Amino acid sequence: MNIAVIGPGAVGGYYGALLARAGFEVHFLFHSDFEHVKNQGLYVESINGDIRLSHVRAYAAPEDMPVCDIAIIALKTTENHLLSRILPQVVRPDGTVVLLQNGLGAEYAAQAVVPDAAVLGGLCFLCSNKIGPGHIRHLDYGSIRMGQHGPGGRAAGITPQLEAVAGLFSTAGIQVDTAGDLGRARWEKLVWNMPFNGLCVILNAVTSDLVSSDPSTALLRSVMLEVIGAARACGYGVEPEFADEMIAATRKMVSYKPSMKLDYEAGRKPETDAIYRYPIEAAATAGYDMSQCRVLLHQLEYLDHQNR
Amino acid sequence: MNIAVIGPGAVGGYYGALLARAGFEVHFLFHSDFEHVKNQGLYVESINGDIRLSHVRAYAAPEDMPVCDIAIIALKTTENHLLSRILPQVVRPDGTVVLLQNGLGAEYAAQAVVPDAAVLGGLCFLCSNKIGPGHIRHLDYGSIRMGQHGPGGRAAGITPQLEAVAGLFSTAGIQVDTAGDLGRARWEKLVWNMPFNGLCVILNAVTSDLVSSDPSTALLRSVMLEVIGAARACGYGVEPEFADEMIAATRKMVSYKPSMKLDYEAGRKPETDAIYRYPIEAAATAGYDMSQCRVLLHQLEYLDHQNR
Repeated sequence: MNIAVIGPGAVGGYYGALLARAGFEVHFLFHSDFEHVKNQGLYVESINGDIRLSHVRAYAAPEDMPVCDIAIIALKTTENHLLSRILPQVVRPDGTVVLLQNGLGAEYAAQAVVPDAAVLGGLCFLCSNKIGPGHIRHLDYGSIRMGQHGPGGRAAGITPQLEAVAGLFSTAGIQVDTAGDLGRARWEKLVWNMPFNGLCVILNAVTSDLVSSDPSTALLRSVMLEVIGAARACGYGVEPEFADEMIAATRKMVSYKPSMKLDYEAGRKPETDAIYRYPIEAAATAGYDMSQCRVLLHQLEYLDHQNR
Repeated sequence: MNIAVIGPGAVGGYYGALLARAGFEVHFLFHSDFEHVKNQGLYVESINGDIRLSHVRAYAAPEDMPVCDIAIIALKTTENHLLSRILPQVVRPDGTVVLLQNGLGAEYAAQAVVPDAAVLGGLCFLCSNKIGPGHIRHLDYGSIRMGQHGPGGRAAGITPQLEAVAGLFSTAGIQVDTAGDLGRARWEKLVWNMPFNGLCVILNAVTSDLVSSDPSTALLRSVMLEVIGAARACGYGVEPEFADEMIAATRKMVSYKPSMKLDYEAGRKPETDAIYRYPIEAAATAGYDMSQCRVLLHQLEYLDHQNR
């Protein structure tokens, strides 16, 4: 059993390091950090104890990597145009691809490249940052909600491949909650991601700012209800009460900057397509206009254009 | 014939100075600038020639003013809670009130205070700023679109009182276009005001920024079409093509900061009620959800809360 980790940043580096520490054969495809990690290893500072991997199976190009049983894709979705080049190099045609990515659409793109592979999606509830080359700081949480992509996005149930990956991650100390309906799980995550990611950028705020003023809380709830309406139009029975649950949960969380806010501050391309455009398009196809999220998307696109 | 000007700032100071220069008896109610104007007069720098009024009929309290035939209200709408105290002091019960104010709602508030007066609303197409005590700089334009408030907001037509005020302003060199349906004129102005005022604050932009990028132009158009939809739901037949006309007109205008942006930068209370809340409520009463404008309103309220 061998595992490829593509894009070992804050997410992939953290989970990859846990899998390597557990003794699995993990091959890491790096981009800018390759030389550093090859020479000095990978270092994960974690609230659960630090991990220092001195000898990392590090690669700078997918062509140099062995074909693996499992490929974990932890690229930003903005890099998913690379999947068609990378995936056939790094995973068996009948292997398993695990997409630890935000938003909608990635599983469709991956499945098109490796039609005979099992394509899983994982929603990471993880606070971690890459703070330097080969240096990751894990701040909180770490569980993954994972499901298999079914034909046409329909529920695939709890498949053997999903159970195998969940078991393997579990062996490495990673909590995985399996989901029989990945589409629903992705829309549930969007109920949080669509209001918070965009508004933290647009209003120059952190999560605690938004849940502690009346107008922003009203706005969060209104956008969440729109996302829930879109999910329902797409056939996923998310309940309206989920909005208030998410707001209450955020009030209890440590305050932080969502990934889009970090991307914006660093001048990186934000994941507006995965987190906004594809859900808006999916809802429109189902006859539902996400008018509030369209406002956020256009505002984000304008700000990104000014920012870079 | 005497005229009271209440709130002689960038708008009221400009028009009041033109009326005084034309020889009308104009009484100005000042707030913070009273002492300065009493001692040093009122100075309007204008592209059409400067106006220096050395002896101004200036007052610090409405109780000190004579009862006038016409009262021009040029307060910010955020000060309209003062109308119930000011209006009965400064205008004849059967006189004429001219509200040179933004947004919706002011005529209803004024008419309730002086039920027998003619209440007119004026939409000022004026670029001017107050740049110091008793010192106004007129940069461009200056015409007023004016109509009379009809019972329940219905079209009042071109009334004798409207014609009288238009004639009087015209004598002073102010171009007035009379509108038989003030409600429609106010909604047409909102087609511009609702996207530009809010987005210039939220996106830290000036008008030319917003009309020169694709995502912000798409957003402007989408919000404008929502305002037009709301106007139509309220019974005002604004055509959808008006959105593109407004965008094209803005491309030709000198770039500038809408009043809400200036208010925000100065830490003043912005006119969110008049420009957003009341139109949104009026549309909701007519069964139309201005969901995009609700997003802008909540964003503005959040930013204002952080700003002051």
